[in-house]
Amino acid sequence: MASKRLKKQLDFIVEIDKLKKIIRQTDLIHTSRRENDAEHSWHLAVMTMILSEYANKEIDVLKVMKMVLIHDLVEIDAGDTFCYDEKGNEDKAEREEKAADRIFNILPEDQAKEIRNLWEEFEEMTTDEARFAAALDRMQPLIHNYMTEGGSWKRHSIRKEQVIKRAKPILEGSEELWDFVKNLIEDSVKKGYLKE
Amino acid sequence: MASKRLKKQLDFIVEIDKLKKIIRQTDLIHTSRRENDAEHSWHLAVMTMILSEYANKEIDVLKVMKMVLIHDLVEIDAGDTFCYDEKGNEDKAEREEKAADRIFNILPEDQAKEIRNLWEEFEEMTTDEARFAAALDRMQPLIHNYMTEGGSWKRHSIRKEQVIKRAKPILEGSEELWDFVKNLIEDSVKKGYLKE
Ligand SMILES: [Ca+2]
Repeated sequence: MASKRLKKQLDFIVEIDKLKKIIRQTDLIHTSRRENDAEHSWHLAVMTMILSEYANKEIDVLKVMKMVLIHDLVEIDAGDTFCYDEKGNEDKAEREEKAADRIFNILPEDQAKEIRNLWEEFEEMTTDEARFAAALDRMQPLIHNYMTEGGSWKRHSIRKEQVIKRAKPILEGSEELWDFVKNLIEDSVKKGYLKE
Repeated sequence: MASKRLKKQLDFIVEIDKLKKIIRQTDLIHTSRRENDAEHSWHLAVMTMILSEYANKEIDVLKVMKMVLIHDLVEIDAGDTFCYDEKGNEDKAEREEKAADRIFNILPEDQAKEIRNLWEEFEEMTTDEARFAAALDRMQPLIHNYMTEGGSWKRHSIRKEQVIKRAKPILEGSEELWDFVKNLIEDSVKKGYLKE
């Protein structure tokens, strides 16, 4: 029989399967459907493996990986809020706090606390790990929009200045990745993927 | 402009988006569609975070996490081979070797080598990290089949002895998780999710 502790952990593992149902605005690159949060989180975790050498400061890679793996779990209850949706972003923090309370507390207390701390650190974006995790989180959809010739930018008539504002924190995580992203945005405008 | 090195890394990041198209036999728990490899890999990475305390031996958690994140990338070319498909498993190793050669070598040489080594270690299942990663990889679909009242077991008329044979290596990774899985299999037979 599973111990009480293991039972809680398994309940959490079953619960988070719901992340695979949370659909983002981002289009997949090689097929015409939108990405879900589990796929996005996996992609960020592999990007952490591959791109950590570009972090402005020495980072704890395991910590960044944990952060990106769990950063969207609150969306199981709160839903994905499109980053350019001003109205939706007004009460986002409140909805996500409530979701964190429910979802993380399925775990045994020590693990609930660890994941809560990781999520809050990610959201506050003040440590080197959180800054790098945020850089990857903001860069990944830009790559998808570029590779799909405009993707969700076109669908929502997004303009260059909005993308720059949203992407700017990448600089805090990685100067090299910010350089790359700046060029990608310029090139997207030139190619007609993104409105001036 | 992106350096030659960064360009290779970005090409790899774009290429692996294809993992989101590789459909497994496993049904999702909370919605009626099958799981893809990216979702599966994400789930295993979070399970690594939550369940590493049950490993038989002290493990390097970051290494296990990297392993489960990349363990199915070869399926981008080789496809998902259902674990109970005897014919498909005959030439699986050969197809996957070829895929590894192509996909990992998109990366700069040092990283191609790191990922190749991680994948081979996972496949050989002889280190403590690989044994624990394999335990999670074999346990996760069992949980899904249990929660979906038989799922892919029923669809393919799988029998208990086949499931036990496939699950047995979990014992090498974690005695406690193997205890749990043994009970889950017995209970699945009792409930009619799995044929005796
Ligand atoms: Ca597989």
